[in-house]
Amino acid sequence: MFFHKQELQFKSSPSKPDPAYAKRMQEILGGQYGEITVAMQYGFQAWNSHLPGKYRDLLFGIGAEEFGHVEMIATMIAQLLESAPVEQSEAAMAKDPVLAAVVGGTDIQAAVVAGAGVRPVDSNGNPWQGSYITASGNLLADVIANANAEMQGRIQVARIYNMTDDHGVREMLSFLLARDTAHQNQWTAAAEELQAEGVEELPIPSNFPLSKEQKAEEYKFINFSDGAAAREGSWAQGPTPDGKGEFTYLDGPDSSVPFPPPTQPDERFYGTTPKPNLVEKAAGVVKDTLSKK
Amino acid sequence: MFFHKQELQFKSSPSKPDPAYAKRMQEILGGQYGEITVAMQYGFQAWNSHLPGKYRDLLFGIGAEEFGHVEMIATMIAQLLESAPVEQSEAAMAKDPVLAAVVGGTDIQAAVVAGAGVRPVDSNGNPWQGSYITASGNLLADVIANANAEMQGRIQVARIYNMTDDHGVREMLSFLLARDTAHQNQWTAAAEELQAEGVEELPIPSNFPLSKEQKAEEYKFINFSDGAAAREGSWAQGPTPDGKGEFTYLDGPDSSVPFPPPTQPDERFYGTTPKPNLVEKAAGVVKDTLSKK
Amino acid sequence: MFFHKQELQFKSSPSKPDPAYAKRMQEILGGQYGEITVAMQYGFQAWNSHLPGKYRDLLFGIGAEEFGHVEMIATMIAQLLESAPVEQSEAAMAKDPVLAAVVGGTDIQAAVVAGAGVRPVDSNGNPWQGSYITASGNLLADVIANANAEMQGRIQVARIYNMTDDHGVREMLSFLLARDTAHQNQWTAAAEELQAEGVEELPIPSNFPLSKEQKAEEYKFINFSDGAAAREGSWAQGPTPDGKGEFTYLDGPDSSVPFPPPTQPDERFYGTTPKPNLVEKAAGVVKDTLSKK
Amino acid sequence: MFFHKQELQFKSSPSKPDPAYAKRMQEILGGQYGEITVAMQYGFQAWNSHLPGKYRDLLFGIGAEEFGHVEMIATMIAQLLESAPVEQSEAAMAKDPVLAAVVGGTDIQAAVVAGAGVRPVDSNGNPWQGSYITASGNLLADVIANANAEMQGRIQVARIYNMTDDHGVREMLSFLLARDTAHQNQWTAAAEELQAEGVEELPIPSNFPLSKEQKAEEYKFINFSDGAAAREGSWAQGPTPDGKGEFTYLDGPDSSVPFPPPTQPDERFYGTTPKPNLVEKAAGVVKDTLSKK
Amino acid sequence: MFFHKQELQFKSSPSKPDPAYAKRMQEILGGQYGEITVAMQYGFQAWNSHLPGKYRDLLFGIGAEEFGHVEMIATMIAQLLESAPVEQSEAAMAKDPVLAAVVGGTDIQAAVVAGAGVRPVDSNGNPWQGSYITASGNLLADVIANANAEMQGRIQVARIYNMTDDHGVREMLSFLLARDTAHQNQWTAAAEELQAEGVEELPIPSNFPLSKEQKAEEYKFINFSDGAAAREGSWAQGPTPDGKGEFTYLDGPDSSVPFPPPTQPDERFYGTTPKPNLVEKAAGVVKDTLSKK
Amino acid sequence: MFFHKQELQFKSSPSKPDPAYAKRMQEILGGQYGEITVAMQYGFQAWNSHLPGKYRDLLFGIGAEEFGHVEMIATMIAQLLESAPVEQSEAAMAKDPVLAAVVGGTDIQAAVVAGAGVRPVDSNGNPWQGSYITASGNLLADVIANANAEMQGRIQVARIYNMTDDHGVREMLSFLLARDTAHQNQWTAAAEELQAEGVEELPIPSNFPLSKEQKAEEYKFINFSDGAAAREGSWAQGPTPDGKGEFTYLDGPDSSVPFPPPTQPDERFYGTTPKPNLVEKAAGVVKDTLSKK
Repeated sequence: MFFHKQELQFKSSPSKPDPAYAKRMQEILGGQYGEITVAMQYGFQAWNSHLPGKYRDLLFGIGAEEFGHVEMIATMIAQLLESAPVEQSEAAMAKDPVLAAVVGGTDIQAAVVAGAGVRPVDSNGNPWQGSYITASGNLLADVIANANAEMQGRIQVARIYNMTDDHGVREMLSFLLARDTAHQNQWTAAAEELQAEGVEELPIPSNFPLSKEQKAEEYKFINFSDGAAAREGSWAQGPTPDGKGEFTYLDGPDSSVPFPPPTQPDERFYGTTPKPNLVEKAAGVVKDTLSKK
Repeated sequence: MFFHKQELQFKSSPSKPDPAYAKRMQEILGGQYGEITVAMQYGFQAWNSHLPGKYRDLLFGIGAEEFGHVEMIATMIAQLLESAPVEQSEAAMAKDPVLAAVVGGTDIQAAVVAGAGVRPVDSNGNPWQGSYITASGNLLADVIANANAEMQGRIQVARIYNMTDDHGVREMLSFLLARDTAHQNQWTAAAEELQAEGVEELPIPSNFPLSKEQKAEEYKFINFSDGAAAREGSWAQGPTPDGKGEFTYLDGPDSSVPFPPPTQPDERFYGTTPKPNLVEKAAGVVKDTLSKK
Repeated sequence: MFFHKQELQFKSSPSKPDPAYAKRMQEILGGQYGEITVAMQYGFQAWNSHLPGKYRDLLFGIGAEEFGHVEMIATMIAQLLESAPVEQSEAAMAKDPVLAAVVGGTDIQAAVVAGAGVRPVDSNGNPWQGSYITASGNLLADVIANANAEMQGRIQVARIYNMTDDHGVREMLSFLLARDTAHQNQWTAAAEELQAEGVEELPIPSNFPLSKEQKAEEYKFINFSDGAAAREGSWAQGPTPDGKGEFTYLDGPDSSVPFPPPTQPDERFYGTTPKPNLVEKAAGVVKDTLSKK
Repeated sequence: MFFHKQELQFKSSPSKPDPAYAKRMQEILGGQYGEITVAMQYGFQAWNSHLPGKYRDLLFGIGAEEFGHVEMIATMIAQLLESAPVEQSEAAMAKDPVLAAVVGGTDIQAAVVAGAGVRPVDSNGNPWQGSYITASGNLLADVIANANAEMQGRIQVARIYNMTDDHGVREMLSFLLARDTAHQNQWTAAAEELQAEGVEELPIPSNFPLSKEQKAEEYKFINFSDGAAAREGSWAQGPTPDGKGEFTYLDGPDSSVPFPPPTQPDERFYGTTPKPNLVEKAAGVVKDTLSKK
Repeated sequence: MFFHKQELQFKSSPSKPDPAYAKRMQEILGGQYGEITVAMQYGFQAWNSHLPGKYRDLLFGIGAEEFGHVEMIATMIAQLLESAPVEQSEAAMAKDPVLAAVVGGTDIQAAVVAGAGVRPVDSNGNPWQGSYITASGNLLADVIANANAEMQGRIQVARIYNMTDDHGVREMLSFLLARDTAHQNQWTAAAEELQAEGVEELPIPSNFPLSKEQKAEEYKFINFSDGAAAREGSWAQGPTPDGKGEFTYLDGPDSSVPFPPPTQPDERFYGTTPKPNLVEKAAGVVKDTLSKK
Repeated sequence: MFFHKQELQFKSSPSKPDPAYAKRMQEILGGQYGEITVAMQYGFQAWNSHLPGKYRDLLFGIGAEEFGHVEMIATMIAQLLESAPVEQSEAAMAKDPVLAAVVGGTDIQAAVVAGAGVRPVDSNGNPWQGSYITASGNLLADVIANANAEMQGRIQVARIYNMTDDHGVREMLSFLLARDTAHQNQWTAAAEELQAEGVEELPIPSNFPLSKEQKAEEYKFINFSDGAAAREGSWAQGPTPDGKGEFTYLDGPDSSVPFPPPTQPDERFYGTTPKPNLVEKAAGVVKDTLSKK
């Protein structure tokens, strides 16, 4: 259960409205790595958790904070939109360059759909969608996904911090940056603890049984491009991070197979299938191709 | 530039067709963490790269391999679909339970749209979309995003491995599992190298200037849920993974502020704004609310 | 701020797992009118509210309950998925009709993506999206939208209630049906109170100034189809629900205008525009058309 | 069947082109509550109707009018776009502030994709989608959904009315506002008639059999937030709008249950499941949690 | 304006319901190339037309027929769904293989959302979307797009024709196949007439001024794959279909340029940019790369 | 397999950055008819091909070139974004009209999400999606779809060519225009060759068996609009392009049938079905309707 309190974790009021800036801020609310994503992601991971105890508590504990961040940002955006202009015709903009700048930078649907209000969309107006979240049921993979989300999210907050000089906005974004630091570290700590406790290990999933043939492919760096510097990195030589092998470098694939023959589904799918004379020609081509190897 | 060769990196032919299984395999082709995602993700990161040299070469080198994996899986799925049934009515299924099972498990659009062919969609038929990829321009964040993608992707390959007994399918999936091990390790190695070389460090972005107030918030674990075990983890005490602080534990937020007053946009947005008598009532409520604090 | 408690408002455990049924239940979680929609809708309406006091409190009070319903249903679905089968090949299904039925009815991504877990999607696997919510800033319109959402949602809960005999599932759905009754009534009561207090009235928005010409069009029922019974309803005669007019019936439009002439944008858009001889012909056609009137 | 006539129900020509304003107008054509939505919604409701006669005739009669409104608005937008500028580089905009304003406010795809043409998208360029419509088969629910759609739609028309001074545009919008008044009233009248005739009643669906336990939950207002004013409304006391009960007020849930134990799906999903020592710890936690109650 | 008549162009009733087949039929209603697409496509092309006269009349004339086809198919699907089963649990399906087959093949949302009704979605449940249509304003391109749509659409109708034995369904599909033949031919005829009249010619757009350098690239077939047979086709030799050149064959690109140097945006985007020592290394790499050429 | 070379087919560098123009260019990268679409489309057609030999080689040969075009345009866009401004507040824009123009015209997510980087989206920020491609398995239909894609794509390149004066940009676009000419012609040549060789013929699919009744409908032009000029075209008289019939003209449908009776699904779907007295009324209406015919 969730209980709501009509307070905010941190002050979320701009010094003055700025509807164009409101549009930029939508990204950290309803974007791929916005607060709705992390709130939902941690929630679904907790609901899918197969382990009771500290890890699930961690998911719930941060998850509920993120729902509060959704609210903080939503409240801020609504205030930034308070001066959203009604008049948006070419004639009006032509007369007033400031209006033109504001109108050109403001989300139209914030005005027309929400009446100068915040919406669950990103900075380009794409609606938030459930496919943004990650919740696989594998805890090690998922806390790394969470660290990833906090990293991308923190970059975006830092970027929009620089897009304004508004003191109130910057204060709230500073607070979010600090909390994102905390969460980046906390998910990373959880990833380390899961491994230290032997719950999971790398590579993920760690308990998949491997054959000897597979093992031969596991630590090759195969360069499918022609960048010579790729062999200089620690990914092309030396021990592997999972502690189970040594990287080797290949300047392209060391084996390959010819294409399988084309498929021949039921003719009632009306696909184009070989007619006798074409089959003959095709057979010739295939033979030629094979004989070249 | 990309050059194509009519060969595959590994044999991609099923022992026999299985159109229901083809639908499961679509996930690792066109899903959130399928091969189209990683191929595109590494490509866009390379095209956006601000650094020439080994890191960009790494992105191109693995990226082009992934385009080949797109092709390997697509070719496999097309063959699995070769026996896709045309007859799909209730009457036909009622007569033949095997047909019913196949039809119930097969992607309809693979039959109707592609004529027993593969499509750039996931296992539920959702089309692949550009919002699946991550490419922020911050290399450390992005290679961690890549490790994350390989982890989630490898879990999915392992899951569908167990969904079939087909030898040909399992062989190709084993190969992919091995390559995913390699790539998981390679992106992780790159993340470590970026830090070792001082190019980037944690938290991401590491060069954002922090105030003292922010710093106070950076390492708190604030529990917004009531799970007592959350305080037992390494995320609630001890040094932080970025090596810059110590975690502390809070049993809820240690500060808060009241909601800002509601917004009053232009009345031509036809939002519901206070009428005189309502304002009076509202003022009373706000006063009451504030006096309770 | 939101605070989470590791308890549920009502018992949410099935008598036994049923992964096919889990897929049906996704509709009331992540569908157009599922719990995520109402939780988010009431939240965004509250954050956009221009009025402090009882109406906003109402939005927050029910909104937070709905986030708890998201959790209740998510928890139930995760349990229904507990027996999700791994083996999903045609061969396995051909051997076991029960397996075939389960596999044919189960969400593939619940297995492959979430490891037998719940996801923020509808019963066809479409991800939840922000465009499902309604929050216009006009309170009367919005509480009617809320009543609408509760009505459609309650129909869906009633439908899936009948799709199972599981006692645990039915108990939880009964609880939800009862709460949906409450909320249907509460939003309807709020709509009435807003009008009784004179905050808003019908038609929405009520404060748009109307000209005399407009008024003439306001209460016509114009029948653009040939269904004779349409004139029998109370929408074609008698007083209008907003208390401001009388309906009249028309058997089709009582006026019309010719199409405006085609547009002629800049030729660098490479659209097909009239060439001299075509213009002549076209002029003839337009003249003919006009002279027929 | 639909028959088309090359005339419009009302004059749809702007005084002069205004491509930036054209983008605003896209909302009422291809947005969530635009004309495509209502045209399609009434059509699908009619095609799904289980009742012949006046209600279906009503759906067809208004539905076909809405297809004509799609055309009216599309024709208007195409004319507004007639002066869409080709030159859209930074240099050109830097030289000419009016051009900058127009370019900043104009839909790029209207120019690049449609050659200065109208498209089935909203004012942010999101394509119209089938998930906007509501058609449940329950007539009372559906006509209320229609009233809701007309209300939200009318608000949006009123908002964009104020965004321009163009006489031709305002005239057409006035006409649409008047027709939306008519339709708001007509759907409301139909909702009343369905109840008066005993076809359906509130709550929807009205014929779901309720147990005594359910009934106890049906009229509670449970406040999950801390807004004290929520108890003052008619939704927290007095008779309910469906005429079947009395509202009561609760300051939070009056009962709850502990979380069910975590799920344990097949280990081949590679989820993180308890290891022996973790199970012991977890058991301790659960015991603690339970004993705290 | 559109006028509706409560009749159908052709009989649209199945011999008996078949809800699994209904799902297949959704593709030709709400899929990428379904009837909603063509109805909307021809409508938007007409509304965007820059030419009055026969071509626009053609668009309107066929477009309105297609809206009627939307209705015919919708009506058929609603009837196919008439026996949609309510009971959809694993237990029920395990008892009854026929039920299992039906449930496994039926669209869940047709039951839960629409109450056994048709919806504007494709056969996988993806909602129809505005991005399916093509309307560029260039008439020759657009009528070819229309021919393309009719071709893909007719293939799909032919495929689902074979998926059932139902006489009523097959009759209606036969009628649609015949009308699709007509429309394929009509759009093709219009494409020829546009060229014969000199309104437009190939390549599209034909009035773009070409430089001599461009012309050199216009008729090369450059083979970026290693398929030897590609040179045998009429696309690699002989006159070009636009009558303006001769094809030539190249076994790969005949020129190329090195990558441009990486970008260096504002550092406040927190991208990873060269640090001094990295720049040196990078410079070395670039030099090496260039010297290899 | 795909192999990558760190070179470009043509020089892709702007004379100077222009982030607003970058947004326009996104259309030809990630739009419905952008390079990602054609690269993927030709790839999936090849992987689904049922014919070995020259046609599949053609698909692979052009497909791989298009992946290189994706890279060329992506590289160009990244460079155009190099000067993307960080400061995007209303205050900053009000001070500097040039900044306002740039900010108003620039993709926000290019800045906030990608750090001044390119993304797989269109010019309105909609992510690329798999549903843009066409790959039916019928070669004749598919190469015509390819010609269609090249035509629409070339129009868009021509349009954005005129939107800038930048020499570097125009050079690259000229190169793309020329290659699009080649591809338009090559797909058209392939369509002709498929027919000349007797592999496929019109109408598509050509091998569907037709009854005599169907044939009667195959070449009618039925005008569902009132445009008199529609009968003047070659689509309304004379031989049909498939060489199999003669067009005839009808001024509306020459037959029709009444609507089938409404459906009566299981009452547990809670749809609104006839109650006795309503049934009587309805029967009367139906009788009236029928008797009018």
